Amino acid sequence: MIDQILKDLFPLNRSLSGEDNRKTLAYLQNLIPLRVLEFPSGTSAFDWTIPPEWNCRGGWIRNSHGEKLIDFEESNLHIMSYSVPVHKTMSLEELKPHLHYLENLPEAIPYRTTYYKRNWGVCVTYNQFQEKFSAGDYEVFIDSELNERGSLVAGEILVPGKSKKEILISTYFCHPSLANDNLSGVVLTALLGRELMQRQNYYTYRILFLPETIGPIAYGSRNPEILKKAACALVVTTVGGPGKLGYKQCFDPKHRLNSLVEMALSKHEPDFITYPFDVHGSDERQYSSPGFRIPSVSITKDKYYEYPYYHTSLDNLDFVRPEALEKSYRAYLDLMDILEKDLVYQRVEPHGEVMLSKHGLYPDTGGALIPGRSSDEELDTLLNFLFEIDGNTSLVKIAEKLNIPVNDLSKLAATLNEAGILKEAEEEG
Amino acid sequence: MIDQILKDLFPLNRSLSGEDNRKTLAYLQNLIPLRVLEFPSGTSAFDWTIPPEWNCRGGWIRNSHGEKLIDFEESNLHIMSYSVPVHKTMSLEELKPHLHYLENLPEAIPYRTTYYKRNWGVCVTYNQFQEKFSAGDYEVFIDSELNERGSLVAGEILVPGKSKKEILISTYFCHPSLANDNLSGVVLTALLGRELMQRQNYYTYRILFLPETIGPIAYGSRNPEILKKAACALVVTTVGGPGKLGYKQCFDPKHRLNSLVEMALSKHEPDFITYPFDVHGSDERQYSSPGFRIPSVSITKDKYYEYPYYHTSLDNLDFVRPEALEKSYRAYLDLMDILEKDLVYQRVEPHGEVMLSKHGLYPDTGGALIPGRSSDEELDTLLNFLFEIDGNTSLVKIAEKLNIPVNDLSKLAATLNEAGILKEAEEEG
Amino acid sequence: MIDQILKDLFPLNRSLSGEDNRKTLAYLQNLIPLRVLEFPSGTSAFDWTIPPEWNCRGGWIRNSHGEKLIDFEESNLHIMSYSVPVHKTMSLEELKPHLHYLENLPEAIPYRTTYYKRNWGVCVTYNQFQEKFSAGDYEVFIDSELNERGSLVAGEILVPGKSKKEILISTYFCHPSLANDNLSGVVLTALLGRELMQRQNYYTYRILFLPETIGPIAYGSRNPEILKKAACALVVTTVGGPGKLGYKQCFDPKHRLNSLVEMALSKHEPDFITYPFDVHGSDERQYSSPGFRIPSVSITKDKYYEYPYYHTSLDNLDFVRPEALEKSYRAYLDLMDILEKDLVYQRVEPHGEVMLSKHGLYPDTGGALIPGRSSDEELDTLLNFLFEIDGNTSLVKIAEKLNIPVNDLSKLAATLNEAGILKEAEEEG
Repeated sequence: MIDQILKDLFPLNRSLSGEDNRKTLAYLQNLIPLRVLEFPSGTSAFDWTIPPEWNCRGGWIRNSHGEKLIDFEESNLHIMSYSVPVHKTMSLEELKPHLHYLENLPEAIPYRTTYYKRNWGVCVTYNQFQEKFSAGDYEVFIDSELNERGSLVAGEILVPGKSKKEILISTYFCHPSLANDNLSGVVLTALLGRELMQRQNYYTYRILFLPETIGPIAYGSRNPEILKKAACALVVTTVGGPGKLGYKQCFDPKHRLNSLVEMALSKHEPDFITYPFDVHGSDERQYSSPGFRIPSVSITKDKYYEYPYYHTSLDNLDFVRPEALEKSYRAYLDLMDILEKDLVYQRVEPHGEVMLSKHGLYPDTGGALIPGRSSDEELDTLLNFLFEIDGNTSLVKIAEKLNIPVNDLSKLAATLNEAGILKEAEEEG
Repeated sequence: MIDQILKDLFPLNRSLSGEDNRKTLAYLQNLIPLRVLEFPSGTSAFDWTIPPEWNCRGGWIRNSHGEKLIDFEESNLHIMSYSVPVHKTMSLEELKPHLHYLENLPEAIPYRTTYYKRNWGVCVTYNQFQEKFSAGDYEVFIDSELNERGSLVAGEILVPGKSKKEILISTYFCHPSLANDNLSGVVLTALLGRELMQRQNYYTYRILFLPETIGPIAYGSRNPEILKKAACALVVTTVGGPGKLGYKQCFDPKHRLNSLVEMALSKHEPDFITYPFDVHGSDERQYSSPGFRIPSVSITKDKYYEYPYYHTSLDNLDFVRPEALEKSYRAYLDLMDILEKDLVYQRVEPHGEVMLSKHGLYPDTGGALIPGRSSDEELDTLLNFLFEIDGNTSLVKIAEKLNIPVNDLSKLAATLNEAGILKEAEEEG
Repeated sequence: MIDQILKDLFPLNRSLSGEDNRKTLAYLQNLIPLRVLEFPSGTSAFDWTIPPEWNCRGGWIRNSHGEKLIDFEESNLHIMSYSVPVHKTMSLEELKPHLHYLENLPEAIPYRTTYYKRNWGVCVTYNQFQEKFSAGDYEVFIDSELNERGSLVAGEILVPGKSKKEILISTYFCHPSLANDNLSGVVLTALLGRELMQRQNYYTYRILFLPETIGPIAYGSRNPEILKKAACALVVTTVGGPGKLGYKQCFDPKHRLNSLVEMALSKHEPDFITYPFDVHGSDERQYSSPGFRIPSVSITKDKYYEYPYYHTSLDNLDFVRPEALEKSYRAYLDLMDILEKDLVYQRVEPHGEVMLSKHGLYPDTGGALIPGRSSDEELDTLLNFLFEIDGNTSLVKIAEKLNIPVNDLSKLAATLNEAGILKEAEEEG
């Protein structure tokens, strides 16, 4: 299924806005019941203004013999995103500032944009540039449109949980035919959302498909209170490459969220890569900004910036394989598990010890409460756990202190919860 | 005197409840005017229920020849505490699950209880078991009673101090003829209480004689506000063995109380033993529970669990000597001194320096304010002390910072208090 | 100019009080419009009482031949400060307890005082003592006066800044002809005040010329609320010696003020001396006292206690050179700069990123925003700075974190302030 989704969505000419963004959301709605949001062009969003809606129907360069040298039909990367319409014959010299290529990757078309500056551009491989362009006149045609009365679209879905505390899962879908950055993130987010919808969750999950940068800014400016209350944000990006799993840390290097991610990753990639927080990056830049300061992380597999094909036509479906994406998906699922298990409990009767025998909890034979432990070890864990539960300390923290797997402790908590000994700590506010 | 008290109280068949518990309290009332508390059987106490009152008038095993093999008259440890009444003839096979002995201590009768499970048992030495029991029939008689309309008794005394802040001194008296665990603790607590009653104390001391575990639970459930305001708890247990002094730490390993205990111990036993906090143990388990979290420590001399005769008939008055108990008593007295001296002072006039000459405090010749110091050293200490006194920092903390014995600083504080320069910091609330 | 001021003020016979103190303030009023404060003798001030006003018109010792051996006219140090009037002929034996000299500095007249004990004294060089005094009679004359209806004088000026937060600059002017301790501090403070008056400052500066110890106590007792709100205190003392720059730390060794001073000093004296806080010292003793606890530091150049000529007639204008004083002055000016720049900013729009291109702030060529940086480095710094500005973190702290000179960051902040992106964080209260 991953394979098919990738193939279906890869060819679309996504950008900050436009018809193919709408088509992408419509396609995703088959997987997950997204609500489509519209942010009208020209309206303001914090320090920004929503740009016009861009659409491109085609574009090419012909030489003086009328031969098409470059054609949007062959790759949507050929036309710089947000190019203004052009139809003009010009000399190579006049054309050159608008031609983009990469000498060090001669077979790759670079990916370029000009979102906030009226301009146009044509992106070609270095080989094309060398072989097809020489002194002479060229006819350039870009059949694009910048509609000041259009809008940016985004997708949102709320998966309600037991608690009103929200975890934000945010991905960006503004890149055209680039597989790792970020079709991979879009697909993983959709699958993750679908899975979460089938579960009973503790947290409420808010899943957002946005154009990068302007998307979270537009969304945040319309919904500042929603973002302010988010417990954390997972920014899903570049999760399908052949390289190692890694993660970008939260702006606070000591934040517990980092430990939880590491716990999830270590199962799948013992020597995962750690990328310290950096103000450069993806949408965590907005979520982490002074007005929000939402702890944000990204699990990645060939993180943006870090692989040579980044932002080129070689970031394609040869580079991104379903198995790789599946691996990242599993890591994210484990992170969900850990987040869901990291609850805070309190004892129903916090004074004195629990009378274990009354509750039938005095371990007779080992393994009943905690797999693989003797009854002595079980008693020891049980007493320690009951001692640590103070209504303030999360399960993962207690698990670390007692050196016991979170899963085991989570099951023990469930048993004690059923026995009426524990309950979830009341939420503030 | 210690010797006599030990001898008088040792033979009584204490348990969670019963006549000998009442007798023990009555005896202690000769030493210290305890108030007797009653907790009726069947009433609830936090997660627990007060058990029936148990009394045992006798018990024995006879062989088929009518010979008494085992007799409660010889040691009250022979009958498992809280044994239900039995009178029955049975085969060795039927008897065996009820016989308890220790192969590794063949001359010791083990101490066993069955407080919360209706059962009975006879505890014998391994030698007795080997020599006296073979295939055949045995007549077992236990003349006990479990009275659902009885009660648990406890002893309490409040020694009021200048401050309403309370220090809890808690000991357990639920063990029959076991000398170190915990007749030693009972005797030491009584002596400590008697001594405190003769002093002018800063703190108010609440002294409790309780059956272990259920005692603090019962007391706490009736008096939760009292426990919640306790500054700390001293759980007096196993203080009379021949081994080294040691102490069990507070649940917070960095708590100041630990330092104060170490200060007291180091005088008496330079290489005292430190037992880190553990959820297993004595009544600090209840005082430290999430609902109370009272910082609790125990000074010990052959701590429970740690000596081979623990919970056997060899924990007797050969093992516990008055001199040993006296040593623990001295250590506890020093701890009292330190606790009492660890006061918080403030300056009557906290602004600017004190004009020493006006108060006749400018050191002319050394040794007047602080023994063994030159006048320069005295001036230096005086100025530093007056600088540190900020109404928040306790005397022991300042003594540590200035590297001066607490006693010397305490005397200096008294001098400055008389001179009208210092006063005790006002208490909160 | 420094040279002239030093020469003009050096000869005056300053003390805790008296005409020459008034003259000194009058002279300083030519440099800086000080307000003169009077604290009447006999009135109380915290734990102290304001002493009588002292004046000394002359004094000498004559031998039995009528020869003047010692004369106040030659050095005002010859007469112990606060000496009561004397006119009496006495034997050497009777005189000796009143004679003060230094065997280890045979050419120096020591500086002695008897502020709070009625006494008199004559200070001489050891050479004088050896050569001029032998068995025989001596006529001693001290033409002094202790006026119980006099007063202590002090100078004060408030230099208002944008903020009402106050920085205290305090110096003492109670020493007679001693150049480093503390004519140097008096002169530096006057110059500093004059300079601050010509600037637009963020902080309000309160500049005080006081007699040491009793001065801050008297001032504080009349103005406790003023002292309580002071952000910090700079105690200006011993800033004109030939030795290395150094500073005495705040009572809290981790206080940021220490870092700011070190930042200022390291420019002028890479291996400056650090003197940890000590309860002995100058007027920081009063400002740091429990009732005030004002973070206080002193930049010094040959700190009191630390140079051999301390409190002797050799602490004169050969020892203190204008160039040395100038160096300390520059260090203090840099400290002012750093204090003034250590502001807290917040973003006008704290949510999401700033749209740099809209504000014309997207670095095209390097060096425009931050000297000596490439456009990439500028962008990086700009983004990081905008990320760190959270309305709580001061500029110096951010500069340290981003490893960029405070001056550069301060200029960048000014640029962003003009662009309407930043504003100063609102003050509390």
